[in-house]
Amino acid sequence: MQHDTKFSKIGLIAGNGDLPEKIISQCINSGIDVFVILITDNLPSSISKVQSVKLNIGSVGKAIKTLKEEKVEQVVFAGGLKRPKLLSLSLDAGGIKLLARITKAKFNGDNKLLTTVIGFFEDNGFEIVGADEILEDALVTMGQLGMVKPDQRQKEDIEVGKEIAKKIGELDIGQSVIVQDGVVIGVEAIEGTDGLIQRCSELQMEKKGGVLVKVKKPGQDSRVDLPTIGPVTIMKAYENGLSGIAVEAGGALIIDKEEVIKMADEYGLFLIGV
Amino acid sequence: MQHDTKFSKIGLIAGNGDLPEKIISQCINSGIDVFVILITDNLPSSISKVQSVKLNIGSVGKAIKTLKEEKVEQVVFAGGLKRPKLLSLSLDAGGIKLLARITKAKFNGDNKLLTTVIGFFEDNGFEIVGADEILEDALVTMGQLGMVKPDQRQKEDIEVGKEIAKKIGELDIGQSVIVQDGVVIGVEAIEGTDGLIQRCSELQMEKKGGVLVKVKKPGQDSRVDLPTIGPVTIMKAYENGLSGIAVEAGGALIIDKEEVIKMADEYGLFLIGV
Repeated sequence: MQHDTKFSKIGLIAGNGDLPEKIISQCINSGIDVFVILITDNLPSSISKVQSVKLNIGSVGKAIKTLKEEKVEQVVFAGGLKRPKLLSLSLDAGGIKLLARITKAKFNGDNKLLTTVIGFFEDNGFEIVGADEILEDALVTMGQLGMVKPDQRQKEDIEVGKEIAKKIGELDIGQSVIVQDGVVIGVEAIEGTDGLIQRCSELQMEKKGGVLVKVKKPGQDSRVDLPTIGPVTIMKAYENGLSGIAVEAGGALIIDKEEVIKMADEYGLFLIGV
Repeated sequence: MQHDTKFSKIGLIAGNGDLPEKIISQCINSGIDVFVILITDNLPSSISKVQSVKLNIGSVGKAIKTLKEEKVEQVVFAGGLKRPKLLSLSLDAGGIKLLARITKAKFNGDNKLLTTVIGFFEDNGFEIVGADEILEDALVTMGQLGMVKPDQRQKEDIEVGKEIAKKIGELDIGQSVIVQDGVVIGVEAIEGTDGLIQRCSELQMEKKGGVLVKVKKPGQDSRVDLPTIGPVTIMKAYENGLSGIAVEAGGALIIDKEEVIKMADEYGLFLIGV
């Protein structure tokens, strides 16, 4: 065991998107050992060369065994997972145990599901570490992040959006809403933030001007599923005529923060931590 | 004034869709005089030949003047309205008065807006009559409407959907949700029910099996904006792989009820009042 750093060997359970690679490169830069479990059908956009194994989403027992063999003590979950098709789920013994627990929890959304998954890994002796503990700089700070300022009307839309998004989050439905002139144009559920932004180009008045507000769900375990925005979010927001983005300060991550702020400035979008 | 029927001359303020014509033909069949105000850019799919005038959505003063000249005492609102573009809104004096009231009400959704519009017409001496008072048979009744029964899992999804849809309605966001295996797949906001159904074909597991639940918003004035389903809803639900539809008994209308039930049976969809 290493006592000179906050982290011993990290086991990264990686889903899709850009987040897993950000964590891997941060680990490499900080000299933290990392072992990656990739999940079939949910591969990250790219990853640096590190020790890794690719497993089926149902191979939970295998994952735990591998992490133990690799002497991993701390586990990070990062990246998105497509909802597995129950019929095609090939579960190993550990997977069956976990599914039994999940079924018992009778989840209606992601929160309870994640809590159950975390609990299962904890009971197997792992400490769960949040992505934000590794990517400290990525956590959104309060206040304006780029150069563009929201006007009064947009500030009001941010307030409406924050309130509604929190309530939508309480119901464990989604993390994001788009608001325009006080009206909720769209609510995110399973389609994700990009899907929400995309369809809202048709729904906005004058086809532009909406504000995206993304917050952490109340009750959401921040060790697993912090809301994230990145360059793709900014690109989509710009392409679909949004006027800006507000994300929860201390409750969300920005991937490639410098790049994201630069893009927002170039595209004339405001970007603000609220 | 006629004292032999419940209704004197009806003024129908018609939006788009099938509902206005249903009311007109019901009035014709029942011998109720009806005068229709059509709204530019929001014309119904078709209407029978009755007295009518086409007005701009901003011509509120003209609408009230016309209804008074036509000796209308009772007004029915029916059909959908596209969100007007504020910039292109050409308001007459009455329109300006109404907009001032709307602005003062600081609405974030449709409810307060509609309440304000109703109040304005009431203050001008009209009685507001709900579409369901004319189309009595169209109001959804409790229980199974067609031959197909929801299974246990679908019944649970209906319960989840009802609870979530009511909460979404409380926030004055929308009336419908789609649920599959306990998970909220999609939430309706400004895109409307058809838009929600359409995008959900991509979001369902195995691309089919979701349940549409549509309810009246708590606090929604049932004289103006009862949730409605019709043949198009059934068609879209079938095309996009839903397994059934649950609508609020006593709180929603079915247009062409016989036809709708027949179609649901043919397509193997359950249809249920809850």
